[in-house]
Amino acid sequence: MVVSMSSCRIFRLFLHPSSSTLYRKYRNTCIHHISTSSSLLQIMGDQVADKMENLTTSDKGQKKECPAKKEDGDGVPAAPSSSGGGGKAALKVPKGTRDYSPQQMAIRESVLATIIQCFKRHGAENIDTPVFELKDVLTGKYGEDSKLIYDLKDQGGEILSLRYDLTVPFARYLAMSKISSIKRYHIAKVYRRDNPAMTRGRFREFYQCDFDIAGAYDPMLPDAECIKMVEEILNALQIGEFQIKINHRQILDGVFELCGVPLEKFREICSSVDKLDKSPWEEVRNEMINEKGLSPEIADKIGKKIQVSGKPNDVIAQLKSDTDFMSNPTTKQGLESMELLFKYCQLMGVEESSVSFDLSLARGLDYYTGVIYEAVLISRGKGGAAVGVGSIAGGGRYDTLVGMFDPKKRNVPCVGVSIGVERVFSIIEQRSDKKIRTTETQVYVATAQKGLVEERVKILSTLWGSGIKAEHSYKASPKLLQQLQYCEEMQIPWAVVIGEGELEKGIVKLRNVATREEEEIPRTDLIPILKARLS
Amino acid sequence: MVVSMSSCRIFRLFLHPSSSTLYRKYRNTCIHHISTSSSLLQIMGDQVADKMENLTTSDKGQKKECPAKKEDGDGVPAAPSSSGGGGKAALKVPKGTRDYSPQQMAIRESVLATIIQCFKRHGAENIDTPVFELKDVLTGKYGEDSKLIYDLKDQGGEILSLRYDLTVPFARYLAMSKISSIKRYHIAKVYRRDNPAMTRGRFREFYQCDFDIAGAYDPMLPDAECIKMVEEILNALQIGEFQIKINHRQILDGVFELCGVPLEKFREICSSVDKLDKSPWEEVRNEMINEKGLSPEIADKIGKKIQVSGKPNDVIAQLKSDTDFMSNPTTKQGLESMELLFKYCQLMGVEESSVSFDLSLARGLDYYTGVIYEAVLISRGKGGAAVGVGSIAGGGRYDTLVGMFDPKKRNVPCVGVSIGVERVFSIIEQRSDKKIRTTETQVYVATAQKGLVEERVKILSTLWGSGIKAEHSYKASPKLLQQLQYCEEMQIPWAVVIGEGELEKGIVKLRNVATREEEEIPRTDLIPILKARLS
Repeated sequence: MVVSMSSCRIFRLFLHPSSSTLYRKYRNTCIHHISTSSSLLQIMGDQVADKMENLTTSDKGQKKECPAKKEDGDGVPAAPSSSGGGGKAALKVPKGTRDYSPQQMAIRESVLATIIQCFKRHGAENIDTPVFELKDVLTGKYGEDSKLIYDLKDQGGEILSLRYDLTVPFARYLAMSKISSIKRYHIAKVYRRDNPAMTRGRFREFYQCDFDIAGAYDPMLPDAECIKMVEEILNALQIGEFQIKINHRQILDGVFELCGVPLEKFREICSSVDKLDKSPWEEVRNEMINEKGLSPEIADKIGKKIQVSGKPNDVIAQLKSDTDFMSNPTTKQGLESMELLFKYCQLMGVEESSVSFDLSLARGLDYYTGVIYEAVLISRGKGGAAVGVGSIAGGGRYDTLVGMFDPKKRNVPCVGVSIGVERVFSIIEQRSDKKIRTTETQVYVATAQKGLVEERVKILSTLWGSGIKAEHSYKASPKLLQQLQYCEEMQIPWAVVIGEGELEKGIVKLRNVATREEEEIPRTDLIPILKARLS
Repeated sequence: MVVSMSSCRIFRLFLHPSSSTLYRKYRNTCIHHISTSSSLLQIMGDQVADKMENLTTSDKGQKKECPAKKEDGDGVPAAPSSSGGGGKAALKVPKGTRDYSPQQMAIRESVLATIIQCFKRHGAENIDTPVFELKDVLTGKYGEDSKLIYDLKDQGGEILSLRYDLTVPFARYLAMSKISSIKRYHIAKVYRRDNPAMTRGRFREFYQCDFDIAGAYDPMLPDAECIKMVEEILNALQIGEFQIKINHRQILDGVFELCGVPLEKFREICSSVDKLDKSPWEEVRNEMINEKGLSPEIADKIGKKIQVSGKPNDVIAQLKSDTDFMSNPTTKQGLESMELLFKYCQLMGVEESSVSFDLSLARGLDYYTGVIYEAVLISRGKGGAAVGVGSIAGGGRYDTLVGMFDPKKRNVPCVGVSIGVERVFSIIEQRSDKKIRTTETQVYVATAQKGLVEERVKILSTLWGSGIKAEHSYKASPKLLQQLQYCEEMQIPWAVVIGEGELEKGIVKLRNVATREEEEIPRTDLIPILKARLS
């Protein structure tokens, strides 16, 4: 952490807080700095950070209440737990979760507003579902990842679990409400008992921003729009270079078929392929052979066929010259679908450089049945070589999930995308250097002498009544300097200052906080003048 | 339920869906009607509704999977639970929760926007906390209501509970982040295993909108602003006449003192007084005598002292003439605080008719230490007599809660208010007759003949690129009539129609959906003309 001049000043002030208001503001800034350094700890590994956290909690005189330590699922010691209430409460948030400070909320709000703007530009409606579902709703939908689901305690009622994503609740909603077509977005928190990596934006409680198009439509029109929207959103967020990798489950299935993979192993081999974004082919190959029981010949065939990616037109040309590929009806049909998809993408104005056709993209979840895609942020190495530095959005087509809930197995075809906003928040938090405003206050009402609180309140009342965002000190007789410093710190554009002189003359001083220029205006003109300045 | 002509038409269409798009729209409307009638069931008592729900679920072929029925905490049978995944998943949401449809979300968004506007007008910052807390954080904060807390299952990590309100997590946040002053709002869902009454807006998962001012300030300035804000919000929401009842815990404590209640019984007698908004004095008196062990004389004394309410000035005058009251230092001091509070309220422009000084107001939660208030909606009976029909907002001062979390017991005085928005949603949902728009789509791009999907997509791409909210059919060759009907149904203001003739001439038809007027404009002028029309 680079300790800047301003943070030194902050620490000095922090030690000698002369006013409560200033104290709080500098306090907050300090907290920001402190949390930056604790982030550094987390870079050292979350386990280390977690142990330090436990130490800190123990330091707070909790040792006596600490029961025999339980090991967490991932080998991290559980937090010490005190049995009583009152002053002994543990002073931390659950592992893998965080409070959002006003600064973080300001970033979150602006990121979500950008995303919602895109969703609305494409005509989406908004829905919400409960944070928990009957456990049965989630059962059998997530494959191996089901172990990460948070269950609620059986308290003598229904058996409930926290939602793991927004897609399964969406499918349950469609089946339950018998909706056969909808274009909706849903922005809400989901829960996974995963190993957190907070600085990289991986939490146990995190936001998902989902957009999905449900309905029986013509091929690839909804699918292409989802890809278009990922491009629009990532461009609008300005978080750096990205690429949207695209593939089709039908192509993967066809490749497995033509390589001789037994049908019953398709899903587990698909799950091995999914690991290619993090592991080298050698490891994935070993898993296929040693864990999934494929012959080395079949594994090698798969490796050759799927390690193909590049510009859509190049990959399409390459595959068309592959006789194996073109003679298998499944891969051939998948390729035709991809051609149509890329044609629509081009017509929609998706940049060729934004997308790649990547046969090694598999996506983890079982429910995908068609097009799949994943956007990754790109870091340019030496010589300009692109390296993927993490997934930022993903999705695909899932045509059979709704049918799993419908009593008559009636399916509603769906395609959608989920934006990984926590990662976006992290990126923007880490790079934002200038102070973000956390309030929208337009006018601060200040008094220059003691005993004027009633006059201040009267002016405030007029301002609020005119829809002007206004604040004052909650001290009856605050010092003028402190009031003005607060305005500068919070970047409030205007201050109205009254003293006994102003009261007698029926005027107020209107101060431009940034320039510190002051002018006297008649009190009766205050509202129209302010409204003109603020518009 | 009044079945209108339009809903008859809806049901007819519903049986013969001729187009998928129309089908969905009418479907949605039907669902709305269905949910209205199921609301009626709930008026008949939630237990009945719950049993019917269970029957419905059983009807869906789930009987075989149904285990021995467990009784819920409140005597309602639990939902049948199937053990497997796949097609057997239970098709319902957890008891006391609901999905929000696009129509409901539109209402929710507009209500929350009104409230947030007020919070921001008063300079509030925004924060968020995790949906669950370490169980210890919640322990010992809610008195009898602790039994309503949702616990998470012990899955080998921390022991967690869903948050019960936003106040305790706020206090934990202040202590943990060592913040000594902040003015923040927090809008989020909270969880209570209570007996739901869905039509009256009582859920197990529900939103709270909290605004709080934390910091050591001068008396009653923050408190009065909270009351001012309740008035502003309830006026802005236009949900009918209301009254804000106000009292002071110090006055209640003083009354108990001067009536001879033993100190250790103060909190439980306060909790009895709290029931006066729902039960007659006779019942509360019986509880005080038979359950809480007060003598009838003391109970009667309390009854006489606290059954006093009315216009602040009248009540203040009445209390000042009460020698018991004025000779007890606690009540006297409480009264002085109330005088100051009402003075500030008046200066802030709070209407005298909006507030009442009500000595019987006690508020349930233990953590209040000063001013308490509760806004109730008023229904006028015959002769204009006001009857409270339910609480819509509440809050008060809690100066010692943060200290319960601080290792050094350092307190941060707080005062705040919570708006009961679920009730507001319910009221607005029940009265809204006209169809609310659920999208913001500005332009629909329609084609008049088959085979023009590519031209449609090109126009859409231009519209999106110019920031115009635009949609089209996901069918390659949809019928023109269906496209135009969709525009009318969704209240999309403009439609751009292209056919082969228009393509040849390089023009488009621009249709005003409401008036059905069409004009021909050059395709190159489409964006500037649309922008002018939409601005």
